[in-house]
Amino acid sequence: MKISVGVSNRHVHLKQRDLRVLFGEGYELHNAADLTQPGMFKAEEVVTIKTDKAEIKNVRVIGPTRMYTQIEISKTDSYKLGLNPPIRNSGDLMGSEEITIIGPKGEIKTNGCIIATRHIHLTEEQMKYYKLEGKDSVNVLLPGVKGGIISNVYLRPSSNAFFELHIDTDDANAHMIKNGDIVEILED
Amino acid sequence: MKISVGVSNRHVHLKQRDLRVLFGEGYELHNAADLTQPGMFKAEEVVTIKTDKAEIKNVRVIGPTRMYTQIEISKTDSYKLGLNPPIRNSGDLMGSEEITIIGPKGEIKTNGCIIATRHIHLTEEQMKYYKLEGKDSVNVLLPGVKGGIISNVYLRPSSNAFFELHIDTDDANAHMIKNGDIVEILED
Repeated sequence: MKISVGVSNRHVHLKQRDLRVLFGEGYELHNAADLTQPGMFKAEEVVTIKTDKAEIKNVRVIGPTRMYTQIEISKTDSYKLGLNPPIRNSGDLMGSEEITIIGPKGEIKTNGCIIATRHIHLTEEQMKYYKLEGKDSVNVLLPGVKGGIISNVYLRPSSNAFFELHIDTDDANAHMIKNGDIVEILED
Repeated sequence: MKISVGVSNRHVHLKQRDLRVLFGEGYELHNAADLTQPGMFKAEEVVTIKTDKAEIKNVRVIGPTRMYTQIEISKTDSYKLGLNPPIRNSGDLMGSEEITIIGPKGEIKTNGCIIATRHIHLTEEQMKYYKLEGKDSVNVLLPGVKGGIISNVYLRPSSNAFFELHIDTDDANAHMIKNGDIVEILED
């Protein structure tokens, strides 16, 4: 089971209300580039994320807006910012860290800061085809001199999903994996 | 086979001649803290490492001086610096990247910049005891939500070694592993 890799740099998903505060009344995100997952796009807009300890500028907003604001960072980022975010699937913000987001027109202090789980986007049909039904997660073999096997790679079936493994920059850099590399889902 | 983890942040080993250029004639490193490997220490001294693209300040010098100057960085650092260093065992500087090191009294441009292989320090007796003789490398199981198995963990037998797994900050952060954590060497 070969699968291509998408490496996720730190990024922000915004709810409509927060977009308004950060970028102004009636503002709409501008699509800078479509992402591989249908309907999702890298916005032209960037924000600054900030804690008492440090800030990181030019954090990309991913569109479209969502029902919740979510800030996805790496463990490396978390040390810099002095945060200890939980490892969470997207949308599961239980215990997430609080952080300040600064836009050109305003700022918000919000919870929603997490380190995303490693995950695979796929369709229900692909779950069947690859005999993954009933599984929550799989192990994935990453090749190379700094390769290995990553565990707890969550399956995220949805209609229209593009079949792809998403890992963060820490996982990518630790294993010397780049965007678009091909890796292997392991059978039990 | 349980083993404790030492996480190596970016650091520099200096040969005597380079120490002299960076810190002045007759300069000697000051021991800020002993490292777990006998005879080695974290020096009080720090340097700046620099490329055309960026610089990183406060890079720790590890003492004592060696026969060669070696700069060990992470893949994350390499992106910041615009370098593409090879993955190498300590002392194997074939194909290493060139970088500028800046000290309080001078600067040098030198090769020797690598990303260190994952490795285990152990004695010849431990090689025998753990039935690792004849092996170059092993796989190590890292526990946790972002755990997995890291491959190509090189065995580095030497007299007086302290039994410890050394990984870089990318490997540590990707797997949420901290200094002093206990992990497991896998048998074949």
